[in-house]
Amino acid sequence: MGNIDYEYPLGMQNVLVPPPQPFLKSIKYSLKETFFPDDPLRKFKKERGWKRLVLGVQYFFPIFEWAPQYTFQFLKSDVIAGITIASLAIPQGISYAKLANLPPILGLYSSFIPPLIYAMMGSSRDLAVGTVAVGSLLMGSMLSNEVNPNENPKLFLHLAFTATFFAGLFQAALGLFRLGFIVDFLSHATIVGFMGGAATVVCLQQLKSILGLDHFTHSADLVSVMRSVFTQIHQWRWESAVLGFCFIFFLLITRYFSKKQPKFFWVSAMAPLTSVILGSLLVYFTHAEKHGVQVIGELKKGLNPPSLTNLVFVSPYMTTAIKTGIIVGIIALAEGIAVGRSFAMFKNYHIDGNKEMIAIGTMNIVGSFTSCYLTTGPFSRSAVNYNAGCKTAASNIIMSIAVMLTLLFLTPLFHYTPLVVLSAIIVSAMLGLIDYQAAIHLWKIDKFDFVVCMSAYIGVVFGSVTIGLVIAVAISILRILLFVARPRTFVLGNIPNSVIYRNMEQYPNANHVPGILILEIDAPIYFANASYLRERITRWIDEEEDRIKATGETSLQYVIMDMSAVGNIDTSGISMIEEVKKIAERRGLQLALVNPGSEVMKKLNKSKFKNDIEQKWMYLTVEEAVGACNFNLRACKTNPKKDESDGWNNV
Amino acid sequence: MGNIDYEYPLGMQNVLVPPPQPFLKSIKYSLKETFFPDDPLRKFKKERGWKRLVLGVQYFFPIFEWAPQYTFQFLKSDVIAGITIASLAIPQGISYAKLANLPPILGLYSSFIPPLIYAMMGSSRDLAVGTVAVGSLLMGSMLSNEVNPNENPKLFLHLAFTATFFAGLFQAALGLFRLGFIVDFLSHATIVGFMGGAATVVCLQQLKSILGLDHFTHSADLVSVMRSVFTQIHQWRWESAVLGFCFIFFLLITRYFSKKQPKFFWVSAMAPLTSVILGSLLVYFTHAEKHGVQVIGELKKGLNPPSLTNLVFVSPYMTTAIKTGIIVGIIALAEGIAVGRSFAMFKNYHIDGNKEMIAIGTMNIVGSFTSCYLTTGPFSRSAVNYNAGCKTAASNIIMSIAVMLTLLFLTPLFHYTPLVVLSAIIVSAMLGLIDYQAAIHLWKIDKFDFVVCMSAYIGVVFGSVTIGLVIAVAISILRILLFVARPRTFVLGNIPNSVIYRNMEQYPNANHVPGILILEIDAPIYFANASYLRERITRWIDEEEDRIKATGETSLQYVIMDMSAVGNIDTSGISMIEEVKKIAERRGLQLALVNPGSEVMKKLNKSKFKNDIEQKWMYLTVEEAVGACNFNLRACKTNPKKDESDGWNNV
Repeated sequence: MGNIDYEYPLGMQNVLVPPPQPFLKSIKYSLKETFFPDDPLRKFKKERGWKRLVLGVQYFFPIFEWAPQYTFQFLKSDVIAGITIASLAIPQGISYAKLANLPPILGLYSSFIPPLIYAMMGSSRDLAVGTVAVGSLLMGSMLSNEVNPNENPKLFLHLAFTATFFAGLFQAALGLFRLGFIVDFLSHATIVGFMGGAATVVCLQQLKSILGLDHFTHSADLVSVMRSVFTQIHQWRWESAVLGFCFIFFLLITRYFSKKQPKFFWVSAMAPLTSVILGSLLVYFTHAEKHGVQVIGELKKGLNPPSLTNLVFVSPYMTTAIKTGIIVGIIALAEGIAVGRSFAMFKNYHIDGNKEMIAIGTMNIVGSFTSCYLTTGPFSRSAVNYNAGCKTAASNIIMSIAVMLTLLFLTPLFHYTPLVVLSAIIVSAMLGLIDYQAAIHLWKIDKFDFVVCMSAYIGVVFGSVTIGLVIAVAISILRILLFVARPRTFVLGNIPNSVIYRNMEQYPNANHVPGILILEIDAPIYFANASYLRERITRWIDEEEDRIKATGETSLQYVIMDMSAVGNIDTSGISMIEEVKKIAERRGLQLALVNPGSEVMKKLNKSKFKNDIEQKWMYLTVEEAVGACNFNLRACKTNPKKDESDGWNNV
Repeated sequence: MGNIDYEYPLGMQNVLVPPPQPFLKSIKYSLKETFFPDDPLRKFKKERGWKRLVLGVQYFFPIFEWAPQYTFQFLKSDVIAGITIASLAIPQGISYAKLANLPPILGLYSSFIPPLIYAMMGSSRDLAVGTVAVGSLLMGSMLSNEVNPNENPKLFLHLAFTATFFAGLFQAALGLFRLGFIVDFLSHATIVGFMGGAATVVCLQQLKSILGLDHFTHSADLVSVMRSVFTQIHQWRWESAVLGFCFIFFLLITRYFSKKQPKFFWVSAMAPLTSVILGSLLVYFTHAEKHGVQVIGELKKGLNPPSLTNLVFVSPYMTTAIKTGIIVGIIALAEGIAVGRSFAMFKNYHIDGNKEMIAIGTMNIVGSFTSCYLTTGPFSRSAVNYNAGCKTAASNIIMSIAVMLTLLFLTPLFHYTPLVVLSAIIVSAMLGLIDYQAAIHLWKIDKFDFVVCMSAYIGVVFGSVTIGLVIAVAISILRILLFVARPRTFVLGNIPNSVIYRNMEQYPNANHVPGILILEIDAPIYFANASYLRERITRWIDEEEDRIKATGETSLQYVIMDMSAVGNIDTSGISMIEEVKKIAERRGLQLALVNPGSEVMKKLNKSKFKNDIEQKWMYLTVEEAVGACNFNLRACKTNPKKDESDGWNNV
């Protein structure tokens, strides 16, 4: 086009390459964004000397932050909440320990020491610490593969402590090395499906005590359990079954009531303990233990014995313990942190995920030294804590004291507690975990998330807890990879009476610009999608040329690629752009880039691409690019000898 | 703000929800984009009846497409190219078979049948089929772990056929099920590092024959080889070493010459065969085989014997064969398809990756029935083919005929060929695979890609071929996951004298808009980055408020999130946006969304989010959003009782 005097466009601005950054600085920036996105050291920067030390202690032990402001008003609320959750923790603790094939007393031990540690180190004000059903089941089933809990209960117990130790170590290490984001790879959909499946499996397991069966399958999947139940119809004990269903009904009705009337939260919170007391009295007076109703039996009085020397560090047991520890540790973290975060969201305070991991990890390490097994922040107990009006983590201390008193004085009272009541407590808690509404929500919003959720559910129910987890995580990661491998691309059209260009699928009133194909690439360009994008862009050009042939419009001359959404790019992506340029040129088309971002510009600048004529064919907005192309099209009509290599961007 | 008469803005357009699509149609669309992005059935749609059948046959056997247009001119070119590559294929075939611990004759067999199959089914015009060094080495080393090739050569041979069969089956299945994109997950950086490492290892292995050593380590890593070489200094044979280095020098100098003078491509192409002839004559006349120069020895005359009945389908061998088959199959595919694509790019024709996979897979399946082992399209041979001016896949047929004649009549001539010449041929070919320039390019453009490349290289050289591959693929996938987990976010500023808003890091002259924080999210929002983004956005708000406090500007009132680059979203992402809205509201800030794409709008629409007041706070461009906020800010100054829930978007 030479030195033509063009009217269009005014006030154009060049696409800039971001100012170069020293290599170390950019590495530092990436590391910070990867590992310290929440900038936890912000407070420290403003202070110096011993003030920093105080902040450091407060960082790892938030109790020193809130204790000085603790008031009598807070105490009153925390005592009420603490006693309420203790009344839930005692029966649940005993029940869940049985899920893990461990002695019932371990459930009480685990509600004594870990809450004290968490109260000092945790940053959530609402989390109520204790054992969880899914974690207990998972740990029990994984360890049972190595050691039979009935044949060798002592080794099994020691293995459980060891697994808890490694779970804690792994959790604390994740937190210390700021790798908390690993937990983010368990998507919400995965967790909903996994938890629902685990809850179903746990409920099925309860059929053993509810039906009063002596022999039962060791597998947890639906098929084995159903076969086991229906091949023993003649062994069913109606006394046990009636008792069981009555208690389940009682627990569900109280929960329903408390849900409708949140003021009476304590009704559902107290119901499990009430069931235990009622059940025990019933057995004691009717001597039902002699008529097929199994009871807990002797519970040892006294506080947690030390278990540091019980940890097993010899193979092959250690490998099993490490594997189990890592898996249950991550599941426990996912639950604890999700629960902590959602309550923090309600009360508008902030939770540092990595700090929480250190707290939960430490609590499990110390727990493994003091005869406790895996603990985290279960949803049901934390919800009760929240509804009971807890103000600080002190409610955990109150619960811990209540459990301590129980351990010291009240354990004999549980002698006559029927197992079927514990099963009823488990079933009613588990039914709350089957979140079918969340599954419906997933179906409505995102079908693929629903598939992930259902795969996890089916994997757990028909396979095993581990299979379900592996399937769900694999599908989730596959989904990310598929997302990355198949990004969306769109043709943009002009929205009438404006200079705005938008996706024609979303804005059906947008119009094609004659002679110009405007494409938008809606994702970062990596090696995993570079070939796909090259093929797809070629196909868009083919399709556009077919359409033009059919309608008889101006023939295609320009391809504009809107790069606004390309947030990142790698070397394969850069090659892809170079190839697209070559493909376009070979078809006699001119390629223009719009608004390449800073990463793209940095790398284009370092490759040979930008040193070519391309700077002329880069525009800041689609509007400018279309303007330049249109101007060129018009100029060519009057002067057919066009010089394609010359762009319109004034320097 | 009630019913105020506002002047701003004119001609605003609502953000639209894309027209709803039937569930099945959208599933069909996704499946098509995932598995048929290049729309291979396009041609078929226009035709009917037997024409479709013809197209179908032509689709799977492209020879029926090009054969009818075949001319004498083409034949002349293809004969020259075919003879040239045959002269390369014969010595290379024999050499590479030794790398795989297989009898040398197998290299010739593998250059006879597979090229015929590829000529019928392949869509590349430039690919010259044959065995490859890296694939041979990988297969040899993986199978050696199961069976010792010296102790049980027959079983080893049968295992090699079986592995080739499974490699072919896997390759063809990938193509048939349109899963070709799996190969894309081997990034360019991975392949550069892996190939370089494998080439280094192969060169090291050649020290055995070059130095004329009888005993040599079975490990392939640098440390073992160096120890093996330097503990046997007294066994080095100078005759062999001198011969070896002379031939390497000769081969390298011819390659250098041909590179400088592309017209004399045949000089480097003929050099290996010349070396073989020279070497054999030398040995024959000097009886060097009696002075420590090892020779090939007897080669059986005759064509490929059938090997269908030799395939081993019994465990444990079958498992090894399947594993080996899958790994070498994918590596062979990656090389073959990359080579095919790059030459297609030069000559401007299109290659369908999935179709190529079917062709390469079939060629290996048939090969495994006819005493051939793993074949694909090696780079060096295809480059010679291209330079020799091949026109169609017929050059493969010519090569095949030449190899057939060799098998029938010329094998006795190789009796005196010294092994050291074969090693020299391998070394000179491998040195070309160590692409240090590509590594430097990676370092310049993308440091992380360089790290991936180096990890693959170091893994292969110091560990093993498999370790290197696993490390490189793991790092590549970890990189994608990290990319996804830590997307970029930017603060946008107003570019002076325009209504354009761009990233302030890239455009340092852009200005903050008082009272408004404009954020751009540069990636799809998934479960893996939703928490990070929530934390990061909160931190941007904190930092902006700190900045405002320091400068004393108008206090922050609006947060505008530019969603243009959010190409996709899942349920976790939708929850994240809802949470950010809540966080903003709790701080007294109003959140506005700009240009949410079709996926985002679809899902926001289905969730409760959009049913709230949010439609009012969605704008099509940042300009409009800023305009509305500014208008609101000004209105609030004159009338402090503002009603935050009221937006400015006219319906």
